Amino acid sequence: MAAPVDLSHHFSSVSRNRNASAVKEFYKYFAIPGIVNFAAGQPHPSYFPYDTLEANVALPQRFNVSNTSDAAPTPASARVTVPKESRTADLQRRIDLTTALQYGLAEGYPPLHSFIRQFTRDHLHPNVPYAGGPEIIMTCGSTDGFSKVIELFTNSWNPDRDWIQQREGMLCEEFTYMNAIQTARPRGINVVGVAMDGQGIRATGKGGLEDVLKNWDFRRGRQPHLLYTIAVGQNPTGGTLSVERKKEVYAICQKYDVIIVEDEPYWNLQFPSAYEMSTRYRGPSSEPSLYTQNYNAQGKSSGYAFLDSLVPSYLSMDTEGRVVRLDTFSKTIAPGSRLGWMTAQPGIIERVTRITEVSTQQPSGFVQSLVAKVLMGPPQDEHVSAKKDALGWQMDGWVRWLEGLRNSYEGRMQAMCTILEESKYFVKESTAASDDSAHEWEVVDRTQMFDFVWPMGGMFLWLEVYFDTHPLRSRYSSEVLSKAFWVHLTKVPQPCLVGPGKMFGATPHSAEQAHKYFRLAFAPMDASEVSDVTHRLTEGFRSFWQRKNLDGLDDGPGSDVEAAMRLGSTVNLFGMGC
Amino acid sequence: MAAPVDLSHHFSSVSRNRNASAVKEFYKYFAIPGIVNFAAGQPHPSYFPYDTLEANVALPQRFNVSNTSDAAPTPASARVTVPKESRTADLQRRIDLTTALQYGLAEGYPPLHSFIRQFTRDHLHPNVPYAGGPEIIMTCGSTDGFSKVIELFTNSWNPDRDWIQQREGMLCEEFTYMNAIQTARPRGINVVGVAMDGQGIRATGKGGLEDVLKNWDFRRGRQPHLLYTIAVGQNPTGGTLSVERKKEVYAICQKYDVIIVEDEPYWNLQFPSAYEMSTRYRGPSSEPSLYTQNYNAQGKSSGYAFLDSLVPSYLSMDTEGRVVRLDTFSKTIAPGSRLGWMTAQPGIIERVTRITEVSTQQPSGFVQSLVAKVLMGPPQDEHVSAKKDALGWQMDGWVRWLEGLRNSYEGRMQAMCTILEESKYFVKESTAASDDSAHEWEVVDRTQMFDFVWPMGGMFLWLEVYFDTHPLRSRYSSEVLSKAFWVHLTKVPQPCLVGPGKMFGATPHSAEQAHKYFRLAFAPMDASEVSDVTHRLTEGFRSFWQRKNLDGLDDGPGSDVEAAMRLGSTVNLFGMGC
Repeated sequence: MAAPVDLSHHFSSVSRNRNASAVKEFYKYFAIPGIVNFAAGQPHPSYFPYDTLEANVALPQRFNVSNTSDAAPTPASARVTVPKESRTADLQRRIDLTTALQYGLAEGYPPLHSFIRQFTRDHLHPNVPYAGGPEIIMTCGSTDGFSKVIELFTNSWNPDRDWIQQREGMLCEEFTYMNAIQTARPRGINVVGVAMDGQGIRATGKGGLEDVLKNWDFRRGRQPHLLYTIAVGQNPTGGTLSVERKKEVYAICQKYDVIIVEDEPYWNLQFPSAYEMSTRYRGPSSEPSLYTQNYNAQGKSSGYAFLDSLVPSYLSMDTEGRVVRLDTFSKTIAPGSRLGWMTAQPGIIERVTRITEVSTQQPSGFVQSLVAKVLMGPPQDEHVSAKKDALGWQMDGWVRWLEGLRNSYEGRMQAMCTILEESKYFVKESTAASDDSAHEWEVVDRTQMFDFVWPMGGMFLWLEVYFDTHPLRSRYSSEVLSKAFWVHLTKVPQPCLVGPGKMFGATPHSAEQAHKYFRLAFAPMDASEVSDVTHRLTEGFRSFWQRKNLDGLDDGPGSDVEAAMRLGSTVNLFGMGC
Repeated sequence: MAAPVDLSHHFSSVSRNRNASAVKEFYKYFAIPGIVNFAAGQPHPSYFPYDTLEANVALPQRFNVSNTSDAAPTPASARVTVPKESRTADLQRRIDLTTALQYGLAEGYPPLHSFIRQFTRDHLHPNVPYAGGPEIIMTCGSTDGFSKVIELFTNSWNPDRDWIQQREGMLCEEFTYMNAIQTARPRGINVVGVAMDGQGIRATGKGGLEDVLKNWDFRRGRQPHLLYTIAVGQNPTGGTLSVERKKEVYAICQKYDVIIVEDEPYWNLQFPSAYEMSTRYRGPSSEPSLYTQNYNAQGKSSGYAFLDSLVPSYLSMDTEGRVVRLDTFSKTIAPGSRLGWMTAQPGIIERVTRITEVSTQQPSGFVQSLVAKVLMGPPQDEHVSAKKDALGWQMDGWVRWLEGLRNSYEGRMQAMCTILEESKYFVKESTAASDDSAHEWEVVDRTQMFDFVWPMGGMFLWLEVYFDTHPLRSRYSSEVLSKAFWVHLTKVPQPCLVGPGKMFGATPHSAEQAHKYFRLAFAPMDASEVSDVTHRLTEGFRSFWQRKNLDGLDDGPGSDVEAAMRLGSTVNLFGMGC
């Protein structure tokens, strides 16, 4: 295997200027036995008011891994304690407040960093095809990670001051997570949408990646050198890219020297059953299921059947080291943890480390130590004294937890999609009764109200609404009907809030097409309520298709609904975090 | 009182481009009773593996507030629990995992934000002279806060691409916290040192603030429009600015339209006794003590004698709203908390909120909820059921805790300074004995080895070493002696690591002067060891002054000691965080 390619020509001038830390040259001084450190600006740990941090934490088996089991979630929890001081000398196993609440390393808290590094290199991506494999750095969640990626790879551009030839560009799916766009766009970066299909980004064809790059109009600025993409459970479309498509995308990025930023918050939420259920309703598909193979069968196994079954990351085909992957604990532990990690070739992680030193420094030691303790348990030499339920999840438990979450979300997806699948049509049954009550003519008028692709991963379903079939379409444009529909749903007996497609339109062009799309999340409600609220939503559809007018649904310009539709330009309303 | 001045002309083009969030327009939809939220990309809280977060936490009285008491620190601790779900409807009092571990507001977790906002507005700065008073936003510590300040107020500059007239400048003390410089400098910002005296930054006189601004050479770029300053317990010099000096500095910043960024990690560590003890040893000072008055006597009291006694912030004279203040929990709770807050006029905090939404989003909910619970305890309606020791510190306890820390650090400062004060001189006693043993001439050779200013605040002492008095000075430059001295200290029987002055030289000019300075921290060692290790350090001084040569102390260029001296260009070695 060859070493990763030097891609430092992509670095911004600011990031190139950052000095490497000389701290490592000094470790040997710190290590002089008994040396008195007058130099450190560190408070003594006796001044930290916390004597312990503790938690009750789920067992990894809390959620089932299969729907066939009727067993309820396991409410049992284990006890986790981060003590003031651990006696363990091994810094990669030492989890205590004396270290976790002190100034630390930008790469991350050593125990957590070592666990996640092993998870990433050995289990998540066992087959990265460059010498030495990737490095990681902990982040304060993927929004923080992406912000650092943008800082690393882009120079900001100001039309009042800079030449158009200096303007940089970023490619992304035409519908995408708007917070990422909002990170990039104010820097003057040209945000360029790429056409999508049910899987996600299109490599070829009109508006696809190759088309955009090949026919780049340099009068708009530099050819884009970054691709921001969500390849699993895409936000908002729910699409998941096949490995074949990823290879095509990677080859094009190689050809045009594009860095791939792969944002994967929904990675472990891949749903084998979506294909099967979709074909059950809709007949055979022209494409095979993504989930019928062991993806690591030709290479090194991840060590877990679950991980081997997941569509591999772009990292697994990254011969050159041009993939930067963002992972987060937001969906696997909690969004409020503000904790995640970035994976890339060492030369890239080194620069991100420099950026981290002068911004976030490190994720909070509170969350790093509490997560590390749950994942790792006490160090080996303290195992004897620890209770059995406090041994930590270990790698097996962590992967088991991820699989349990996958199954839980998969159940939600099935419940919502089944009901939507069966309610796509507005069926008007009018009975023309004759004098003779024995003779009735049933007139059935079947109109399709919406369609969707069964999501192979993630938390979302992307609904395409057929406003053209609405009886009022002759009087109103489909844009007007779309706005009215959104308000209608907030006023029905069971009010519903759905995500307007315009919120996810990365470019003015995609935003124009967006009015017919709505994003539905099957994550936020109680699991037991998914079916019921989805039924209610479909009732909202039916009552909208029955409307004879739009009275009370158009508050006019400047109204809330107008504002809702302008959401393409705002952040953080629905689905904060990625 | 007038409203703060519009200072948006200071904003960078990137920050000006950030869109305001429209989320508030939608609160009323979220508030529709029983509305089903299909729109949010939020995992259900039942998937968070944490069922509780808990901690043992010090009582606010753990440390004495006066040295006259012989009482040992109180080891007692209270029990703090963040439950999965609180029944309280008041979001500013509701502290639970369902809210804390979910996506949240960029301003901060509502309970913590409201507590800190009240602390800041009513107690820390009760007399901010603009209408409406300041706003706050929680940060991931002050390094994060400063990084956002730099992002907000500066356009980066690249000599290969931009005109020199576009280059922006930042003023700072000539010796300062290097991480701040390292944040700014790679952006191409002109970092401009201002002369200092024992208090800190000089307003007038040669090299002072007015001199630098008035005689600005525009061939270097734009006149600096930012001042980065540490006014209490300055890092590294330990200086604390009088309110009179602050008024002078503020007036100059007004005149030249400069934003003041006041970084105050050591705010509560102000030491009234330093003045008294210094004059006891050195005789009366030409300047009065900073700590003989109630600073809020003419205005609104902070409500606490301790806070009223502290030299007021620049915010207290900020009629125009040009002060941005950074506070951190790093020294009052723990550096690893990565938690702090920024205080400024609302127009500035609003822009920082936009930056936060696309970078850190919010500090981790783990630390925000655990700190909030310690500070606030359970909500009022749950007080009855709570044990007495779990009622939280409340505002009184928090201020009491700060005062206890102040007293602890003040004791350390006294111990170290007393020993250094009494060991400044190298005393060589040679006895010339005559035949007549009754007659001895005692020849006393008294050479001053170093001097310092007693620190009126903070964690540091700034030692000026008089290498010119060293016997080897005739053979070696004082730069060479300085390097040799640093290595010497790592090789004496009790090895010591001290902070080389060059690490804090903000500009090449100050770095040149820096070799004679060393920073000593009285924070990192055990409290009981301060005296002993300081004695050992003075032994190191004496043995260096006795050296007949520098054998074994000069490893030549490229060595560790060379690298140590180059530390002015590195970050994060000693005294990470601020």
